[in-house]
Amino acid sequence: MMHQINVGEDLRDRNREIAAENREMLRSHGVFSLNIMSAPGAGKTSLLVKSIPMLTDKYRIAVIEGDLQTTRDAERVGALGIKVHQIQTGGVCHLDASMIHSALHQFDLDSIDLLLIENVGNLVCPAEFDLGVDARVMLLSITEGDDKPKKYPLMFSESRLLILNKIDLLEMVDFDLGKARQEAADINPAIDIIELSCRTGNGIEAWTDWIENLISESRNG
Amino acid sequence: MMHQINVGEDLRDRNREIAAENREMLRSHGVFSLNIMSAPGAGKTSLLVKSIPMLTDKYRIAVIEGDLQTTRDAERVGALGIKVHQIQTGGVCHLDASMIHSALHQFDLDSIDLLLIENVGNLVCPAEFDLGVDARVMLLSITEGDDKPKKYPLMFSESRLLILNKIDLLEMVDFDLGKARQEAADINPAIDIIELSCRTGNGIEAWTDWIENLISESRNG
Repeated sequence: MMHQINVGEDLRDRNREIAAENREMLRSHGVFSLNIMSAPGAGKTSLLVKSIPMLTDKYRIAVIEGDLQTTRDAERVGALGIKVHQIQTGGVCHLDASMIHSALHQFDLDSIDLLLIENVGNLVCPAEFDLGVDARVMLLSITEGDDKPKKYPLMFSESRLLILNKIDLLEMVDFDLGKARQEAADINPAIDIIELSCRTGNGIEAWTDWIENLISESRNG
Repeated sequence: MMHQINVGEDLRDRNREIAAENREMLRSHGVFSLNIMSAPGAGKTSLLVKSIPMLTDKYRIAVIEGDLQTTRDAERVGALGIKVHQIQTGGVCHLDASMIHSALHQFDLDSIDLLLIENVGNLVCPAEFDLGVDARVMLLSITEGDDKPKKYPLMFSESRLLILNKIDLLEMVDFDLGKARQEAADINPAIDIIELSCRTGNGIEAWTDWIENLISESRNG
């Protein structure tokens, strides 16, 4: 049993403190970091597998893989020849700052430019835990339906980028792109939105460009 | 903030007690009940909307809709002209026995034969909370990938029926039906499996037949 409803401020404060430590630690070593979140099966691992080879010329990349039980995602990403640290949460439904803190000690941060963190597949709980990264990214598979922004608003309000994945299936499902975009923007007017398909590869470059722009901004900022 | 990691036995015991009360309460009024779980967007509400009209000739049906924030699902189901009680969890990522207990007091249980509970969209946490129903049912949309049984084993081990939804998209996605079936059976050898498409309607009858069989068994048992 991993939950308690309406836990007070203690846990929230403690996570925030450790997230601030993580943020400081990552920045002091010049590591740019993203927390990638979605429901199960929306395509987080596929996105990493497709896009990391397009980024390794420019950046030294490491990945933290959060998973309830298995090491499958870590193996898929590790096959790319980059550093991967696996966090098996043992049933816990999200990553928290303290798990990331321990993982950071497993890396030589001076040899990393970009840290990509794949959260546990869950559209609810991961949004509540700041990990200390530069930005949060969420994937929504269009097969999940266009009603998700209003139903899971916290994930949308906490994310800087919304990736609409599996766009190759648009003709096959009842998904109103305009409605989804509008409702996401209603919740978070500043959110960036990219449509892509990890399966066909269409749109992946918009995602790698987005990362490059953010890294440039953070280096110049 | 809604979670605490590794909460002790207290909460688990308390949920189990209330679930037992719910079970007793439902049985004493002759109400057969199902807890329907899945990741966000796997098709729980669509399944209800498609199948309830096929069951209303035989059973007096009520629905409890669990949702983080909105009343959209309750409105979709309520349009069928049956009793619907909405539980807005206010961000909590699952239903628990106590929420169901309060909801049961909103119904005249003597006028209900079949209670369908739609849980919050989440492949992790709802599996941990017994609600006191007769059986748990999970949906997996094949767009989520065939690796889900091993990655989210508790949901599969706790469910009596696995519904593989969106089977109409099989040609469009990389989903190995044999592998998914085998891995689900490895975790839970007794699990029933039905393939269907809420979109096309194919296979919905297998689901309504499954419910009818279970109700007959429970009445004869």
